[in-house]
Amino acid sequence: MKLEAALRQRRLADLRANMASLDLDCVAIVPGANFQFLTGGRFASMERPTILVIPTVGEVRAIVPALELLTWQGLDIDARVHPWRDIDGYAGAFKAAAADLTPRRLGVEGQRMRVFEELALRAVLPGAAIVDAQQGISRMRLRKDQGEIAKLRRAISISEEALAATLATARVGVSERTLESTLIRELLAAGAESFAFPPIVVAGAQSAEAHGHAGDYLIKPGDTLLFDFGAAVDGYNADVTRTVFVGEPTPEPRALYETVREANRIGREFAKPSVTAGAVDDVVQSFLEKSPFVEGDLIKTGHGLGLDVHEAPQIMRGVDIVLEPGMVFTIEPGLYLSGRRGVRIEDDVVVTETGIESLTTFPRELRVVG
Amino acid sequence: MKLEAALRQRRLADLRANMASLDLDCVAIVPGANFQFLTGGRFASMERPTILVIPTVGEVRAIVPALELLTWQGLDIDARVHPWRDIDGYAGAFKAAAADLTPRRLGVEGQRMRVFEELALRAVLPGAAIVDAQQGISRMRLRKDQGEIAKLRRAISISEEALAATLATARVGVSERTLESTLIRELLAAGAESFAFPPIVVAGAQSAEAHGHAGDYLIKPGDTLLFDFGAAVDGYNADVTRTVFVGEPTPEPRALYETVREANRIGREFAKPSVTAGAVDDVVQSFLEKSPFVEGDLIKTGHGLGLDVHEAPQIMRGVDIVLEPGMVFTIEPGLYLSGRRGVRIEDDVVVTETGIESLTTFPRELRVVG
Repeated sequence: MKLEAALRQRRLADLRANMASLDLDCVAIVPGANFQFLTGGRFASMERPTILVIPTVGEVRAIVPALELLTWQGLDIDARVHPWRDIDGYAGAFKAAAADLTPRRLGVEGQRMRVFEELALRAVLPGAAIVDAQQGISRMRLRKDQGEIAKLRRAISISEEALAATLATARVGVSERTLESTLIRELLAAGAESFAFPPIVVAGAQSAEAHGHAGDYLIKPGDTLLFDFGAAVDGYNADVTRTVFVGEPTPEPRALYETVREANRIGREFAKPSVTAGAVDDVVQSFLEKSPFVEGDLIKTGHGLGLDVHEAPQIMRGVDIVLEPGMVFTIEPGLYLSGRRGVRIEDDVVVTETGIESLTTFPRELRVVG
Repeated sequence: MKLEAALRQRRLADLRANMASLDLDCVAIVPGANFQFLTGGRFASMERPTILVIPTVGEVRAIVPALELLTWQGLDIDARVHPWRDIDGYAGAFKAAAADLTPRRLGVEGQRMRVFEELALRAVLPGAAIVDAQQGISRMRLRKDQGEIAKLRRAISISEEALAATLATARVGVSERTLESTLIRELLAAGAESFAFPPIVVAGAQSAEAHGHAGDYLIKPGDTLLFDFGAAVDGYNADVTRTVFVGEPTPEPRALYETVREANRIGREFAKPSVTAGAVDDVVQSFLEKSPFVEGDLIKTGHGLGLDVHEAPQIMRGVDIVLEPGMVFTIEPGLYLSGRRGVRIEDDVVVTETGIESLTTFPRELRVVG
């Protein structure tokens, strides 16, 4: 999607200011969140390298596969373009893009750039130290503007609508896989353009696995049933978890649920400008640690959310990023009883001037289905 | 999905034989096609490294995030496991996994492994040269067995069923986006577990862009309408393209279509054991080059298909891989008239003892909708 020129220029200027503070004289950016944030472009990142090379001073260079050239031109980016064709290979385009550059420190997105792209850059910039600057480069995306928050709201609203419709079909004897398929169709019907990740729908003992997958298991009375999923809109991702009970729970599972709900509430109440991301995790974990339900280690409270499903700020002990208005992250405490059940309640929140606003508004009260 | 032990052992032995021939004394494999092929495991590859370290001799080591440990254990892999927790970070697990290893040449999947994973390996194996061995490692997956081909057949059959249902709804005035949404729902209804890539549904001038995206454009008489998409089943991907006409085409678009159809036929007829992948592209391109419709450069004829959507053998001039029974690839010639229309017809074929069998059976005859 083409971005306004003024927005593109502001974002590029932001990135260059960050580069200076990180002592990087050049960065190379591959398709993904940062690439989309700077250009509006969303390219498949398969065997054909597509790379933005951005020196602190001077022209931006774009290495673009010839068969993506029309799409690239539609973005109207102010850059020197080096297209390359399958038949010729990409080495020549890398060489031409780098011909007049001699960076000392080249920043790359360590969690995004792949080794073959890095090796192609090393070949044409032999004097540059390759630095994993994923966090530094992504810093330009930490505080979301109103346009970005509107997209997140839309993705979340679609997700909540789809969850409501799916829960209405949950009955004893229905399989995890059927519920997953229903959820996917409802997400698309509600307007999801794609998914933040393959939706997780797990019941019973499976719900104790943080990243289980839907199977043929048929839900039965007494199960917890956990949905962790999110719609994506214009590349912006929702990430929502709700856990419900199949039939009325006995006192112990009920207490487990209420403990997690209280942890979620404590996190949402504590988060505000001027506290660190690590401190939010700290208060949530300190509360959970006192519970008799804790087995093994607790999982971090949450993660930043936007064009990436997992981005800064990580809501994890030790992270010293100070919360500021516009930051968006998840609060998703959970307790997992191995072989029995798991409960997680995940909200997506945006930091305001005085605290946070939860963008997810789906009820958190214990709910019985089936 | 858990693999049979005998299958796992055979695949690991295959890999180790390839390693010896590539002079690699160790490889490191990240989640993706090769990881799944060896272990049955499919892990999300986000900020948490999950890595198999496989020396030529001795135990396989697995670096696994603690929250994936249950899933890992369910795979029943014979390996020394090094779990790590978010709170501790992963450096310790890398160190322990590498403690008794001193490889000279460490092969990695250059198009899959990311820079942060590579840097973590470099830190604990400082004496090793990092080699992009994507092709060599993936060689174990070149010839598909009957179980794999059955999954591809299923993915293709689902794709064709969904296309038929979607084409039945194509009418003048319907938007690309509506058709895309219909296709997605039909894919899921037919049994797709996920998609090979986000489906491409483009009409009119958009069909001349090799990788366009569905938009608000409403299809109109005279348009070509191009669908490029595929269902995935157990990680195995279909990749199918068909182009249809909205209303009866005039002679020129008809001739364009028939030229592409003939190129597709020539490719399917020529491909057989003992010819090279490059030679298949050569005969197809040599035919297309004589056409008056060629603008600019032709795109390669196809690519291998399996657990990866784009894998070896690339059907591209110069590729000297000799075709062997069990190899699976696409034959997808196209002609693109910039600003007007594009036509592509893509089949998925498996090499047999005497030629190829097209796994796609959707009719290729010119079809009019609307």
